[in-house]
Amino acid sequence: MTAVGPGAAVGSTHGLSGWLSHRAAVLPDHPAVETREATLTYSELDTRASALAGELAAAGVCASDRVGLLAHNSLEFGVAIHGVARAGGVLVPLNARLTTGELAWQLANSRAALLLAHEPTIGQATAAASEAGMAAPMLLSRPDLTAGPAPEGASPEAAAGASDVAAIIYTSGTTGRPKGAMLTFANFWASAAGSAFNVGVLPGDRWLACLPLFHVGGLSILLRSVIYGTTAVIHPSFDEHAVNRALRKERITLLSVVPTMLERMLDADDAPFPASVRAVLVGGGPVTRETLERALARRLPVLQTYGLTEAASQVTTLSPADALTHTGSAGKPLLGTRIRIDAAGGEPGEILVCGETVTPGYFDNPGATAEALGDGWLRTGDIGRLDTDGFLYVLDRRDDLIVSGGENVYPAEVEGVLRGHPLVEAAAVVGVPDARWGQAVAAAVVGAPGLDPAELEAWLRARLAGFKVPRTVRVVATLPMTASGKVQRRLVREALAGGGPQ
Amino acid sequence: MTAVGPGAAVGSTHGLSGWLSHRAAVLPDHPAVETREATLTYSELDTRASALAGELAAAGVCASDRVGLLAHNSLEFGVAIHGVARAGGVLVPLNARLTTGELAWQLANSRAALLLAHEPTIGQATAAASEAGMAAPMLLSRPDLTAGPAPEGASPEAAAGASDVAAIIYTSGTTGRPKGAMLTFANFWASAAGSAFNVGVLPGDRWLACLPLFHVGGLSILLRSVIYGTTAVIHPSFDEHAVNRALRKERITLLSVVPTMLERMLDADDAPFPASVRAVLVGGGPVTRETLERALARRLPVLQTYGLTEAASQVTTLSPADALTHTGSAGKPLLGTRIRIDAAGGEPGEILVCGETVTPGYFDNPGATAEALGDGWLRTGDIGRLDTDGFLYVLDRRDDLIVSGGENVYPAEVEGVLRGHPLVEAAAVVGVPDARWGQAVAAAVVGAPGLDPAELEAWLRARLAGFKVPRTVRVVATLPMTASGKVQRRLVREALAGGGPQ
Repeated sequence: MTAVGPGAAVGSTHGLSGWLSHRAAVLPDHPAVETREATLTYSELDTRASALAGELAAAGVCASDRVGLLAHNSLEFGVAIHGVARAGGVLVPLNARLTTGELAWQLANSRAALLLAHEPTIGQATAAASEAGMAAPMLLSRPDLTAGPAPEGASPEAAAGASDVAAIIYTSGTTGRPKGAMLTFANFWASAAGSAFNVGVLPGDRWLACLPLFHVGGLSILLRSVIYGTTAVIHPSFDEHAVNRALRKERITLLSVVPTMLERMLDADDAPFPASVRAVLVGGGPVTRETLERALARRLPVLQTYGLTEAASQVTTLSPADALTHTGSAGKPLLGTRIRIDAAGGEPGEILVCGETVTPGYFDNPGATAEALGDGWLRTGDIGRLDTDGFLYVLDRRDDLIVSGGENVYPAEVEGVLRGHPLVEAAAVVGVPDARWGQAVAAAVVGAPGLDPAELEAWLRARLAGFKVPRTVRVVATLPMTASGKVQRRLVREALAGGGPQ
Repeated sequence: MTAVGPGAAVGSTHGLSGWLSHRAAVLPDHPAVETREATLTYSELDTRASALAGELAAAGVCASDRVGLLAHNSLEFGVAIHGVARAGGVLVPLNARLTTGELAWQLANSRAALLLAHEPTIGQATAAASEAGMAAPMLLSRPDLTAGPAPEGASPEAAAGASDVAAIIYTSGTTGRPKGAMLTFANFWASAAGSAFNVGVLPGDRWLACLPLFHVGGLSILLRSVIYGTTAVIHPSFDEHAVNRALRKERITLLSVVPTMLERMLDADDAPFPASVRAVLVGGGPVTRETLERALARRLPVLQTYGLTEAASQVTTLSPADALTHTGSAGKPLLGTRIRIDAAGGEPGEILVCGETVTPGYFDNPGATAEALGDGWLRTGDIGRLDTDGFLYVLDRRDDLIVSGGENVYPAEVEGVLRGHPLVEAAAVVGVPDARWGQAVAAAVVGAPGLDPAELEAWLRARLAGFKVPRTVRVVATLPMTASGKVQRRLVREALAGGGPQ
C-alpha cells in the first residue's frame, strides 16, 4: 500500500497504470492474476509493475515507445502489460505462433524500442529481434520467484491519458501485410463498461483466460479485470479438462472461448456445471443450436458474441434468453456501441461499427486507417444482416477469413506465400470443416512441372506460422474462375471439403 | 421494440435517451421503474418517454431548453426525466419542500422554458410558475393510467452527446443564493461505472430509491439503473417499515440512505436481512461504530460514502471489509476519481475532487464556477483529512452545513432571512443533535424590543422551506463573537444543544 503524503492526491487517473495503482490502494490483498503455479495480489502486481517499469526506463524506454511482448499465457505476461504501461510504453503483443520473419516484420513495422520475452520464448525472441535489427530481448523474470519491492525511485509513474494508446495489435487483412490496430485506454475502458453493463460484474468475479493473451480476446480479460478489481485466472493454453475442472472447483464465474472449445468442453464429460458460472462468452464463429442446447442442459449460460480486434473485442452479444429464439444471431450491440449494415433493403452487407471501443486507426498507416474509418464508421470487412428486431447475423467473416482453433487465417496471406514459390502458378486457399479446430486451412495450387509437395511444405513452414500452413495442398489443373477473373473460392471449398471432382 | 429499417443503425449513442432506447431494444420486457402501484418495463418507459417528448416539443421545448420538474417520488418522475432527455431538454429537478418564492427563483435563474408537475404538486407548481412569470405548468399524466404507444412522429429523438448537460441541480452554499450545478451525461456515466466497479452490478439488480429523486442521491439511482439495464424501485418517501419489508420480500439488492434512516431501519425490528441485499450505501454523514456493528450483526453490508451534488453523488466509499478498522472514514475514491486535501503536513483541510464525475460548472454563474473549479480541482468546501493509508475522514461538511433528515440546510441562508426581519438585530443558526433527523435546525437571535416569536416563525415559514425553519429560536442578549467579529457557531451550538448558560 502506498503511503500518502500531505497534500498528495489519492485515487486514479485513467490508464492501466492508474487503474492498477487504484486497485493496489483499495484492494491490496485481493488476487489480481492467478496461474496454476502462483497468484499475485494487486499489491504484489503493482510492486512488480513498478520494478519492471524501472528496468524498462533503465533500458532506455521512454513514454510512447513501443515495447514488443513475446510470451505465452503466463504470470510473466500479466506483469509485463502493467510494467510497459507504468513506463508509459505502448504494448505490442506478438503472436508466439508466428515465424521469425513474421515477428521481425511486426517489430520493425511498429518501430519497437525493445522486445520482452520469457524463458520459453527467449530463443524465438532473440532470433526475431536480431532479424529486426534490434537489441537483444529483455528476459522477464518469473514473478513468483522474485521477491521484495522495487528499489526506491525505480518507479517512473507515467501519467497516461484516456486517449493514449495502450496497445498495438496486428491483424491481417484480406490483402497485403498485417496492420497494427491501435487501442487506447479509453477503448478498453468502454469495452469493460459495456461488458459489465451486459453480463454484470461482482467484486468476487474470476474470469478464466484460456484464449491466447496476445489476441484481443485474451488481453481484454486482463485489462477488464484490473478495471473491475476482480481476478484474471490464466491457463497456459486451452485444455477442456482443465477448464471444466476450473469451472467446477475454482469458482470461475466468467469464461471466454471459441465454439470448438465449448464443444470440446461438452464432449469431455457429462456432468452439469455449477450455478457460479455466470456467463460463457463464445466468439469467433456461430454456436450451433445443438451445442447451445447441450450447454444449456448442463447449466452453461452461453452468450454468443461478435467482436474484432479493432473494437477492443466484443461488439454484440446474444443473451441466453434470446439464444433459442434467435439461434445463429450474435445479438445486439453493447451499450455505447452502434452497428449498421452497408446495404439497402434489409440485404446482407458489410458490418459497420461505431462507438467508444473502436480503434482510432492503424499505427503509421494512414491509408489503411482512411479506408477502414474514413467516414467515422469502422468497416469490419465482415458480412452480416440485421433482422427486423435488430438482431445481428454474421454471415461471412471478412470475405474468406478462416478461423482455425481461435486463430484467424487470411487466405490472401497464404496465397501470397504460395504464389511466391517459383513453381506455383496460381493458388486458392480456403477453410474446410474440421472436427477439432472448427476449420482447417486447405489449398488448391496450379503448379509448373516438377513441383514437389514436400518441398512446397518446407517453403511454407519457413515463411508462415504453423497454424497458417495448409493441412492439405491439392495440385489441380485449373482453378474455377468468375467471368471477371476472380477465383471462385466457394467452388474450391466444396471441392476440397467434399473430395469431389475438380 | 423498434423495427430496424435497412441500413439503419442499431445501438445507442450516449445520453439518457440513447441509453433508454438501447435498453428498450435489448431488454424490452425487463422492469425499468417500479412503485407500489405500477411497474413500467423498458419498452413501456421508452414509449412514454417518446410520448412526453412529443408533448414537450409541441409545447415549444427545443434542444438545450431547461425544463423544471416539481414532483414527489413517483412513476411520473421516472417518466419525466426520460421525456425531457428525449426532447433534448435539460432537467431542472426542484425540491418539492421549497417555498413558492424559492422555487420561482430557481425557475427564473435557470430560465426554464416549462415546468412539469404531477397531480400532488400542481398547485404549488402553478403558484411558482406564475411568480416566475412562466406559462402554466404541464401536468404529467399518470403513466399507469395512460395506455398505448405514442403517435407516430411524436418522438423527436434528439442526439445528445456525452458532454451535453443532463441536469441542473441547485445547491445552496455558505453564502448567497443557490447555485445550479450542471451535470453532464458523461458525469452520470462515469459515476455509474465507478459505482459498478466498486459494489458490482448484476442484470437482476433492484436499487431502492427512498431518498428524494430531486436530489442527486435519488436522481442518480434512476440514471444508473437505465445505464445498467436494471430496475429502480421508487418509494414515495422514507418509511423504515416499508424499506425493511422491501429488502426482505421484494428482492431489493441495493439501497441508498442517510445515517438516521439506517438507524431507524435497525430500530424498527430485530430480524436479520437476507443475503440478497448486496450493499447499503450510507451518505450525508458518518455512521457510528455502534450502528455499524448492529447493521453487520443483522447482515446489512454497510458502505459509508462521501459524495456531493457537484460530483454526481459518490466520491469515496468505505468497503465493509475496512469498516471496522477505519470506523468514521468515508473510504477511498471510486475508480477514475481523485481527491486531495488542501493542506500541508497531513493536517485537515478542504477536500478537493477531480475526475470524470465532476460538474463542468454552475449554470450561468462564471464567478462561482471559477471559484469552485478554477484550478481544475473541485473545491468542495468540506473539511477532511487523509490517513497514511489514503482513507478519507470527513471532519466538517461545508463549514457549518446542517444535515437534517437527508436535507442540506445552510446556516447563512436561514440567518439571512432572520436578519431580514425588521426587529432582528443579529442571528446565528446551527444544527443540534436530533434523535430522529440526525440534526435539527436551531437559532439564536438578538432581537429589538417587541420581537414576537410567533410572528417571527410566520415570517420564516413564508420565506423558507419547512425543513429550513429553525425548530428552536432562542432570543439572547448577545452572540459569542471572535476577536475578528465572526460569530462563534461552536459556542452557539453548545448553548442551544445543551441548554447551558449563555
